[in-house]
Amino acid sequence: MPGKVTLVGAGPGDPGLLTRKGLEALEKADVVVYDRLVSPAILALMPEGAVKINVGKEASRHPVPQEQINRILLEQAQQGHNVVRLKGGDPFLFGRGGEELELLAEHRIPFEEVPGITSAIAAPAYGGIPVTHRDCCSSLHIVTGHQRAGKELAIDFEALVRTGGTLVFLMGVSALPTICAGLLDAGMAPDTPPPWWSGAPPPPSGG
Amino acid sequence: MPGKVTLVGAGPGDPGLLTRKGLEALEKADVVVYDRLVSPAILALMPEGAVKINVGKEASRHPVPQEQINRILLEQAQQGHNVVRLKGGDPFLFGRGGEELELLAEHRIPFEEVPGITSAIAAPAYGGIPVTHRDCCSSLHIVTGHQRAGKELAIDFEALVRTGGTLVFLMGVSALPTICAGLLDAGMAPDTPPPWWSGAPPPPSGG
Repeated sequence: MPGKVTLVGAGPGDPGLLTRKGLEALEKADVVVYDRLVSPAILALMPEGAVKINVGKEASRHPVPQEQINRILLEQAQQGHNVVRLKGGDPFLFGRGGEELELLAEHRIPFEEVPGITSAIAAPAYGGIPVTHRDCCSSLHIVTGHQRAGKELAIDFEALVRTGGTLVFLMGVSALPTICAGLLDAGMAPDTPPPWWSGAPPPPSGG
Repeated sequence: MPGKVTLVGAGPGDPGLLTRKGLEALEKADVVVYDRLVSPAILALMPEGAVKINVGKEASRHPVPQEQINRILLEQAQQGHNVVRLKGGDPFLFGRGGEELELLAEHRIPFEEVPGITSAIAAPAYGGIPVTHRDCCSSLHIVTGHQRAGKELAIDFEALVRTGGTLVFLMGVSALPTICAGLLDAGMAPDTPPPWWSGAPPPPSGG
């Protein structure tokens, strides 16, 4: 009888932002497959007896290819294990969680997804910035700033600026100059402020 | 000495999707100020001894105005209480959390915000739909469909369609015909599918 795969969103880093359901799944896991975006404080919550498979070693700079991760999840479940796939943030927001579940669905492996807190909303919040505010913006746009190898960044900056909403770029550090130039060229004011800034220091991090 | 206000995102309903930090704050609360979007299963987690203030009674159809909620939070904290403001979803995504904190900041009341799981990502996830997928969309746009009394819905549908991303409208039930017509007029294909649908039944709800 196959085991089950639970895709768990670990959130942005603070172990307090893991959900109760995510923690429960983790505590019951035989096998945990995790990557480099999961914080050490959350990795410390993995059960001692569980087999831990790191599929995103940063140091080696040779992360495990997605197809191989999909296959590891399938094989571990086929061996009857209770597998947790632990991912930073939310598995379904740029987490490639959909792809990992496709192969499981094809092979009729039971799976479940436990959403996680996304850094797109929580990171500004920890800096005192709400992503929407009734007086100034009524939409939130979360865009990947990650460039695929050999491809141009395919972002319609003019459309984004026209929405008038808050823009959050994830994985955008290396493309930051391109993103800023794109937004300015599309007419965004260089002094656009965040929706509202509380000036409050960030809360003490548990992570 | 004033107390403290902790704004806690309760998530979309399943009590398993409350964060560990949110639960901890709730368990320590003297006063809990909550509204109708918080599920009964989460309300059941409030400490027995806490004073519970409902500011969003649905039955009466006379919810407490925002200014009064802000004032309640301020007064309770000024009386030295450990206050939790419990809100559905995430307090900073259309939750008016920013407004509630402004008055507290003005009066130098200590506050903290604990992000919550947003239904914009979790509700599709529970239906087997990831909001992004590498093969078909690389952005997520969360838009309020709520019309302010006497105002037109101010959405630039053409800009949204041009982004090519996944569109999620929150609080859009009454404006649904306007939203659909706006998207179709802006050129969205009537048969646009969700990013990927697993066909999996939703997980058992704890709520």
